[in-house]
Amino acid sequence: MTALDGGSIEMMIVMSEGATPHDVEYVLQKLAEAGGRGHVSTGDVVTVIGVMGDREVIAGLPLEAYPGVDKVLPILRPYKLVSREFRRTDTVIDVRSTKLGGTHFGLIAGPCSVESREQLMTAARMVKAAGATMLRGGAYKPRTSPYSFQGLGVEALQILAEAREETGLPIVTELMDIRQLDDVVRYADVVQIGARNMQNFYLLSAVGQVEKPVLLKRGLSATVDELLMAAEYIVKEGNTQVILCERGIRTFETATRNTLDVAAIPIIKQRSHLPVVVDPSHATGKVDLIEPLSLAAVAAGADGLLIEAHPAPETALCDGAQSQSPREFSHTAARIKDLVVWAGKTIG
Amino acid sequence: MTALDGGSIEMMIVMSEGATPHDVEYVLQKLAEAGGRGHVSTGDVVTVIGVMGDREVIAGLPLEAYPGVDKVLPILRPYKLVSREFRRTDTVIDVRSTKLGGTHFGLIAGPCSVESREQLMTAARMVKAAGATMLRGGAYKPRTSPYSFQGLGVEALQILAEAREETGLPIVTELMDIRQLDDVVRYADVVQIGARNMQNFYLLSAVGQVEKPVLLKRGLSATVDELLMAAEYIVKEGNTQVILCERGIRTFETATRNTLDVAAIPIIKQRSHLPVVVDPSHATGKVDLIEPLSLAAVAAGADGLLIEAHPAPETALCDGAQSQSPREFSHTAARIKDLVVWAGKTIG
Amino acid sequence: MTALDGGSIEMMIVMSEGATPHDVEYVLQKLAEAGGRGHVSTGDVVTVIGVMGDREVIAGLPLEAYPGVDKVLPILRPYKLVSREFRRTDTVIDVRSTKLGGTHFGLIAGPCSVESREQLMTAARMVKAAGATMLRGGAYKPRTSPYSFQGLGVEALQILAEAREETGLPIVTELMDIRQLDDVVRYADVVQIGARNMQNFYLLSAVGQVEKPVLLKRGLSATVDELLMAAEYIVKEGNTQVILCERGIRTFETATRNTLDVAAIPIIKQRSHLPVVVDPSHATGKVDLIEPLSLAAVAAGADGLLIEAHPAPETALCDGAQSQSPREFSHTAARIKDLVVWAGKTIG
Amino acid sequence: MTALDGGSIEMMIVMSEGATPHDVEYVLQKLAEAGGRGHVSTGDVVTVIGVMGDREVIAGLPLEAYPGVDKVLPILRPYKLVSREFRRTDTVIDVRSTKLGGTHFGLIAGPCSVESREQLMTAARMVKAAGATMLRGGAYKPRTSPYSFQGLGVEALQILAEAREETGLPIVTELMDIRQLDDVVRYADVVQIGARNMQNFYLLSAVGQVEKPVLLKRGLSATVDELLMAAEYIVKEGNTQVILCERGIRTFETATRNTLDVAAIPIIKQRSHLPVVVDPSHATGKVDLIEPLSLAAVAAGADGLLIEAHPAPETALCDGAQSQSPREFSHTAARIKDLVVWAGKTIG
Repeated sequence: MTALDGGSIEMMIVMSEGATPHDVEYVLQKLAEAGGRGHVSTGDVVTVIGVMGDREVIAGLPLEAYPGVDKVLPILRPYKLVSREFRRTDTVIDVRSTKLGGTHFGLIAGPCSVESREQLMTAARMVKAAGATMLRGGAYKPRTSPYSFQGLGVEALQILAEAREETGLPIVTELMDIRQLDDVVRYADVVQIGARNMQNFYLLSAVGQVEKPVLLKRGLSATVDELLMAAEYIVKEGNTQVILCERGIRTFETATRNTLDVAAIPIIKQRSHLPVVVDPSHATGKVDLIEPLSLAAVAAGADGLLIEAHPAPETALCDGAQSQSPREFSHTAARIKDLVVWAGKTIG
Repeated sequence: MTALDGGSIEMMIVMSEGATPHDVEYVLQKLAEAGGRGHVSTGDVVTVIGVMGDREVIAGLPLEAYPGVDKVLPILRPYKLVSREFRRTDTVIDVRSTKLGGTHFGLIAGPCSVESREQLMTAARMVKAAGATMLRGGAYKPRTSPYSFQGLGVEALQILAEAREETGLPIVTELMDIRQLDDVVRYADVVQIGARNMQNFYLLSAVGQVEKPVLLKRGLSATVDELLMAAEYIVKEGNTQVILCERGIRTFETATRNTLDVAAIPIIKQRSHLPVVVDPSHATGKVDLIEPLSLAAVAAGADGLLIEAHPAPETALCDGAQSQSPREFSHTAARIKDLVVWAGKTIG
Repeated sequence: MTALDGGSIEMMIVMSEGATPHDVEYVLQKLAEAGGRGHVSTGDVVTVIGVMGDREVIAGLPLEAYPGVDKVLPILRPYKLVSREFRRTDTVIDVRSTKLGGTHFGLIAGPCSVESREQLMTAARMVKAAGATMLRGGAYKPRTSPYSFQGLGVEALQILAEAREETGLPIVTELMDIRQLDDVVRYADVVQIGARNMQNFYLLSAVGQVEKPVLLKRGLSATVDELLMAAEYIVKEGNTQVILCERGIRTFETATRNTLDVAAIPIIKQRSHLPVVVDPSHATGKVDLIEPLSLAAVAAGADGLLIEAHPAPETALCDGAQSQSPREFSHTAARIKDLVVWAGKTIG
Repeated sequence: MTALDGGSIEMMIVMSEGATPHDVEYVLQKLAEAGGRGHVSTGDVVTVIGVMGDREVIAGLPLEAYPGVDKVLPILRPYKLVSREFRRTDTVIDVRSTKLGGTHFGLIAGPCSVESREQLMTAARMVKAAGATMLRGGAYKPRTSPYSFQGLGVEALQILAEAREETGLPIVTELMDIRQLDDVVRYADVVQIGARNMQNFYLLSAVGQVEKPVLLKRGLSATVDELLMAAEYIVKEGNTQVILCERGIRTFETATRNTLDVAAIPIIKQRSHLPVVVDPSHATGKVDLIEPLSLAAVAAGADGLLIEAHPAPETALCDGAQSQSPREFSHTAARIKDLVVWAGKTIG
């Protein structure tokens, strides 16, 4: 057994079968130049090099482009500040005296977009009555088609603030573009970053510098580790109040809009101290799957849910097919609250 | 509004923009020759033809190869006997007085493979003690590598029968090849068809002719509708006792071996009267995800679970990393039973 | 046969089996209120409604949320200005007297990022000598890790301009954030929108208003139709000079970083008049696959290639493992040029 | 640098952060008991163990189930006999004096299924005239729906033999079930194993024992390495005449039936000495994509093509929409032959 002082093993370099001793020397020399070190294991067929050194420097080396290198296998996860190892205790988000994380379950609900003052106020009262702990509603809408409704903008933010005034519910709303940052931060309690912006690194850095919690949605084709790397971008700037959101990934299955990756919940909780919520509306695109998937998320250990609910889904300007009516949301919320108690947590 | 008597609309043919009236006539003529009928809707840009007629005949027409046809959109689902429309009440599987389906929840557990008489008997007692309702164990093993353990064969079947004798637990075991059919049917209570054989249509037809229930696993890249079509192959031969099994699908995510498609549970229950169970061991490949995903499956409405449990996972000849130890299984089974009661069902 | 004057069939609504005549009436009434019309086909099992009317209005109706609606099947493609139907002749991009599109093949090459004046000038001379028609190089870099090199910014743009001065090659560089728009437009000849920003709709609208061609990369999990919808966002603002880029999609296969969807090339050319280029470097992440995949792209009908080439890949600050060396690029470029001639096109 | 005599490094075990020295000792002891050895690298955060020993024994250990083990990273590829390292020169298949592999390009064409003597004879003459080197045609058909045409069986095999008699073309036909083995082997020149049977290990072993070449299709969700493992099953039994076939994988893209993984061609040729052909018909499901994708396959280095062609696609009992007509096939075959010459190979 070889004790290697002075560093952690960041990755393993697997040399190709035809690699020469000179190739191995070249790698070791490059590592040394970067202030790192290589620990060589030579087998009959291939040689493997364990790499030690400063992560930020080592990560910048084009190891796979060196002669004789077959592949590079990461050993340590590439994020640090968001990792469970960095912080053992669960991060709990505290917004206007409602909590999310640890033993506190957050129930965030509301319409896809703010369509009018009347629509939003009705929605806010309805989700408040059913037991929601936060209100969601979009002011700026990312739409696949340029011909679809794009949101009311600042007017919507003001209506959301008014609903908060009346119901006491903190508001969650999406930031889509850096130019909206000031407005969104002025009105919102939680700033949402949508799935399509999960790797918009400038936007991530920007919300890393504000003092509002961020709800970060997983990209349609992002791995769990990529989601955590995106969160690292935010936390690195100083904002540690990040809520992760699983909202379905893209697969070959067409029965649902996306495929809810329910295993992401326990995986994220193993790898990170950040809370994770689930959006069953976007995950499936179907209103009648919201309840069973909400319950599945609670049972799997989620810290909260993000549910689309609308006073009259059949008139909604977006996402009507995946929004619950008042009666449906009331039923689902009651079941959720019951299961949250079963799971040993409290609402809010 | 046009009432079309004498048939259901099986599919819609969308003609391409450049299609001529002659192309439309050709399609209508071919439908008529096959005893069917087309209902034409002509728009400014494209023409759409609703197709009516005997499904089995229409399905044999190469509609997409006809001149001027752009695409064919199915309207009715392609399965019939397994559909919820065909049978409104839930199918309940009854095996040696334990039940699965409807309000009866089945807890199937045991090792990946039968390794020895002692191993299996210990496993059987352990899962029985923890509350399992059926015992699983492989006699024939599909292995990705030809260099891996391939199972004990008939000897394993006899050991399974002995375990049933002692514990009273019905046994579930996989059939991999038509030549094993007689042996497997002689000993097993439930015949399992593995994910890799989900579209082995000869095997499906063969188990459609035996009088034992079949547990049919979803293929790694099969849609829910393809799973139901595979079940249709079995039921069409006369065997209506089919249990469907969601066991994860293949996606880009590498944090888990496969991605458990938890939405498949409520989707299947909407579309079919057959019971559906979940295999969290194969879905994730990770023992510490078995409990949260088992609970998620119960909460989402599953009719049962299929869990790998082994007296000593660190000695297992296969799937050790995704098998629960006695202590782990006992804990998980207790939580499952508690949640099954919460969901208003009974075990077995 | 029913002739329906006054409109094209935009979509088909499939009612569920349990839908009532009242449900059908409700849909028809809502369509009428929106200035549209429905054409009903009633079968034994389900009713289907063909929808006609103004697309932009109809698209805003939450049809799937109406009572009794099972699903909505689109008939016409959702984009218009970028469609082959809108413009039959191929769009040809003309930049500083080099062309791309139609019979003109564009060979765009250069390093992942501009690292220094010397590195970039060497790269520019090298790709020019081998026959490239445009020079690529990143000034702003999207990096999965916040700890990686993020680009030289404006300084890089100035270096690129200097390289253009010397070699005559037009320059292609990525715009990542709206705040960089003025700088990028000032220096670049073609503005690249990266895969992660394919659905950054604000950015798309912004480049739709500039007078430089845009190279739009397909998102990792975007369908071809979503790519075309993203292009529609740009063209709708007035900028018709859009080059589409296939750069691999995310699948379960791990042998390559992404999976090059070579069929996207002929599919795009059928559906759109815009030119399409292929990026084999990002599609695979492996330098030794660049040549075979470049040739495959040419053979499949691509209008150009985007290849990463670096004076010394083993020193590259990013993408070293997928960048060709001078010798490699020279060999590949010669083969490409030969096959372009075979295909009946000319370089530039 | 540590020289490790007596073995190759098969895999690396990465211990979890919390692993104890006792956990490391346990792993080393288990490796020793299995006749292997571990080479330990201890870093600040985690310990990594390189594993040496007999592959077949080591592969049987449940390493991931050992206490303190985080994950196991394979170093060497799991196949041996089919690997490029095992055999440096290309395998060339020689059937009735036509060749496939190395510098010999095989053009296999014919209808999806044998429908009648007249249909098949016409098809055989047509593909022969256009330059095909082998004739394909199905006697047994795997169909997703039990209500579709299932093939003519032995009668079809006899018709195929008659076509060979007349045209001299070797015949390729699919084996679906072990009970058809004798018949198929009696008549066929090349035995095809379909995508759905790629991991039907009993069938693989069975064809490993016959003296006819096998054409093995990649499964819809199989990785390249899994395809090579499946080929290893065949070669291990003694049959070294295996042709691999890329026929598209399942992804989220719906514009084509599957996504042709064109990078699989050079990847397979790097990793294996076996020839690889491409099936553009099944890869896309669209007749007008056959030609561009065939050319892409040739350019990427494929050893052959498998194209569906039918005397009258609009009457085909299966796959009409992806079969070329005589005129289409004749055009495509001419283009293919021209590009094969460009690539420096010969037909047959």
